[in-house]
Amino acid sequence: MSNAYKYNDDTIAALATPAGIGAIAVIRLSGKASFSILNKIFYSKSGKPIDISKKAANTIHFGVLKDGETVLDEVLVSIFVAPNSYTGEDIVEISCHGSLFIQQNILNLLISNGARLASPGEFTLRAFLNKKLDLSQAEAVADLISSGSFAAHNVAIKQLKGGFSSEIKDLRDKLISFASLIELELDFSEEDVEFANRTDLKLLVNEIIKKSENLVNSFEVGNVIKNGIPVAIIGKPNAGKSTLLNVLLNEEKAIVSDIAGTTRDVIEDVISINGISFRFIDTAGIREAKDKIEAMGIERTYQKIAEAAVIVYIFDVNKIEISELKGIISELEKKITENHQKLILVGNKIDENSEIDIQKKFSSIPKIIYISAKEKRNIEALIKSLTDYINSKNIDLNTTIITNARHAEALGNSVIALKKVIDGLNNNITGDFISSDIRNALYHLGLISGEVTTDDLLQTIFSKFCIGK
Amino acid sequence: MSNAYKYNDDTIAALATPAGIGAIAVIRLSGKASFSILNKIFYSKSGKPIDISKKAANTIHFGVLKDGETVLDEVLVSIFVAPNSYTGEDIVEISCHGSLFIQQNILNLLISNGARLASPGEFTLRAFLNKKLDLSQAEAVADLISSGSFAAHNVAIKQLKGGFSSEIKDLRDKLISFASLIELELDFSEEDVEFANRTDLKLLVNEIIKKSENLVNSFEVGNVIKNGIPVAIIGKPNAGKSTLLNVLLNEEKAIVSDIAGTTRDVIEDVISINGISFRFIDTAGIREAKDKIEAMGIERTYQKIAEAAVIVYIFDVNKIEISELKGIISELEKKITENHQKLILVGNKIDENSEIDIQKKFSSIPKIIYISAKEKRNIEALIKSLTDYINSKNIDLNTTIITNARHAEALGNSVIALKKVIDGLNNNITGDFISSDIRNALYHLGLISGEVTTDDLLQTIFSKFCIGK
Repeated sequence: MSNAYKYNDDTIAALATPAGIGAIAVIRLSGKASFSILNKIFYSKSGKPIDISKKAANTIHFGVLKDGETVLDEVLVSIFVAPNSYTGEDIVEISCHGSLFIQQNILNLLISNGARLASPGEFTLRAFLNKKLDLSQAEAVADLISSGSFAAHNVAIKQLKGGFSSEIKDLRDKLISFASLIELELDFSEEDVEFANRTDLKLLVNEIIKKSENLVNSFEVGNVIKNGIPVAIIGKPNAGKSTLLNVLLNEEKAIVSDIAGTTRDVIEDVISINGISFRFIDTAGIREAKDKIEAMGIERTYQKIAEAAVIVYIFDVNKIEISELKGIISELEKKITENHQKLILVGNKIDENSEIDIQKKFSSIPKIIYISAKEKRNIEALIKSLTDYINSKNIDLNTTIITNARHAEALGNSVIALKKVIDGLNNNITGDFISSDIRNALYHLGLISGEVTTDDLLQTIFSKFCIGK
Repeated sequence: MSNAYKYNDDTIAALATPAGIGAIAVIRLSGKASFSILNKIFYSKSGKPIDISKKAANTIHFGVLKDGETVLDEVLVSIFVAPNSYTGEDIVEISCHGSLFIQQNILNLLISNGARLASPGEFTLRAFLNKKLDLSQAEAVADLISSGSFAAHNVAIKQLKGGFSSEIKDLRDKLISFASLIELELDFSEEDVEFANRTDLKLLVNEIIKKSENLVNSFEVGNVIKNGIPVAIIGKPNAGKSTLLNVLLNEEKAIVSDIAGTTRDVIEDVISINGISFRFIDTAGIREAKDKIEAMGIERTYQKIAEAAVIVYIFDVNKIEISELKGIISELEKKITENHQKLILVGNKIDENSEIDIQKKFSSIPKIIYISAKEKRNIEALIKSLTDYINSKNIDLNTTIITNARHAEALGNSVIALKKVIDGLNNNITGDFISSDIRNALYHLGLISGEVTTDDLLQTIFSKFCIGK
């Protein structure tokens, strides 16, 4: 159960800033040899070697990097001394001019002087192995970097601060004490002693179960926060799906200020309203359909519905018959009640007829939102309806929410084991069985913050990181 | 003639690292209010405000950025105190997690606390206005960031170190002394005095002319170093232009190590051999031609030849007739002698016939390089021939080379004015005319390092920078 992941104590280097050209780039070096490697290549502007191992921690030094006699760049070097650094090792951060040529040549220079190119997530892995972060905090770093909405960002920041995992860790530590006491009893089994107070144990186990179940339940919400709430826009050909999609996406693009052109690519097909992301499913399908013979099969529509949390059914108010619409609604409602999804009915193309006539026509069907996607009329009402989904879920962004399937699974498994402990206590079964169930629960709880790890687990988690983190 | 460019003394902020997602990003803040703006939003992890104005220069501080009660990110803050910073102002660099969301929200937070989003090049403009860099050094910063080959990088680094512009500045200062002395003579014109020694003045002016002419001459080389040596691959349909292009580009891609996937996009259609870039002209035309009816008009071929420094004429050894080839070569040679270009003859598809037969067939035409682009045979010989172009130009990368058309123009104009000074001295014309020509030369020389600037000039130079530099 101990941590067997191999700790390479060599010195790793990687580009820490995004790939590409910018004013500056930062290259990071971590490990025992960080300072000695840099000392070989770092000089004052007048050409004198600079011994950074003699400099104070958390200071910045100007100089040039030289490859032999060739000056590669004028740089700023930041020094972090173990254990007070991100990885817990000696770290050097080189802030260089942001050309690809320079970035690449500095990395090559570091490598030829004894560093190794870091694997994805290796800096954070070292931080974990050196106990600078627990495992769920390490995962929060990756979530934080990829978070695109306020809510997702907020959850990741909280997880990074360690609130949730330290709470679990406290409860787990208490449970470990009980496990030890029960195991101690086993040594004295012939004497029928009871070191572990069963009433207190039951209280603790129930507390952990309750806490874990709440967290598991928060995962549904956490998942949509992290990945965006999946929305399916469905409807017949020419109902206006594509126009509506574009209007919604542009609505967002108008809101998000486009500083330095960074956001455009990323918000594609995702809008963020009140800090929550909505992710449109199969937008390619919707867009293609405009040009091709638009004939999305029933099969494909049902699949979209199954994947979505919110279904937007859009129809042309001028073309559809009441009876047909009622039939469609009733069929959709059958589908969605199984999965607790929300259905939003959107009557489109109100610009082509008088609103009074339209409302009269559909008066027997409640809750239709009437819009003109073409003229961007009443889109706010639809957006409000999307956000109502969130309100209906009672998402309190200030409570602890888990967003990680791995955590949900571990918590779920620990609940199963802990319920067996309660059963055992209620049925007065022997200490060895109770102890075994507690150990099982401890194992699963320990996986969350990384008190228990396996090579596979670490491999899976850190391989998803970008290089340089 | 003084510098009239408006100095905004407000505080500017921008993303300094490349746009995109990475492990970290750096946001830069420069100006009087840098520290006070940061003090409003920077706290210790436990929530206490941190007063960075009380911290030592060139130190790094860990903490959190807060927007009201919301923690935006855990960051490292680097402090640089005026005048010892890049811009010469107080600077704060915020190293944050590299998510787009965080980058954007920190920028927004800085702006809502009193900073302004920087214009392109505004940090470097401030560095220039605060005399941290002269104008040619500022230009070198932009060149450095965009340089993609060793030679281009090397020239930019030298220019950044200021060698070339400080030399010009020294000569210009001496010339200013002479100009003053001559102008002093004018005040005593009735007394027929001569404060300025005409022999010494002539020596100095000739030195400046010689230096300037050498630099102007280096521009041809400097320009190809900076932008890559333009190579035209021409030939009849199906001669193998497209295959050859791909082979050459792939040759390079195999050499360039692809660290973190940063290089792929940039080296497109450019190869770097022995540190010099070769840039293939109209590669789109070559590639298109594969699919379309390949019929590049004479007009277009001539245009490519005019743009190129090296022309690669490729033909199918199995299809072309000797008489036809001789005709083409003689016509190409007529074209290229005008522009001192290099012609490389490439006989392709040697895999389809015996080499002895081929060599016999073309024995009357010297200097053909026989290759098989398809089988990648003898490509090294072609690459050697490309690099020979550089050797023939006697490019010594260790001499001072100018790469900037603006510098070449200013130096050329100063040479014209200085030759008039020499003429004037030789013809014993009056001091006021000599003084006027010297002033004219001083003006042009001053434009290089920025002793003389105009708003238009600064606007032109700095608007080409990226934001954040």
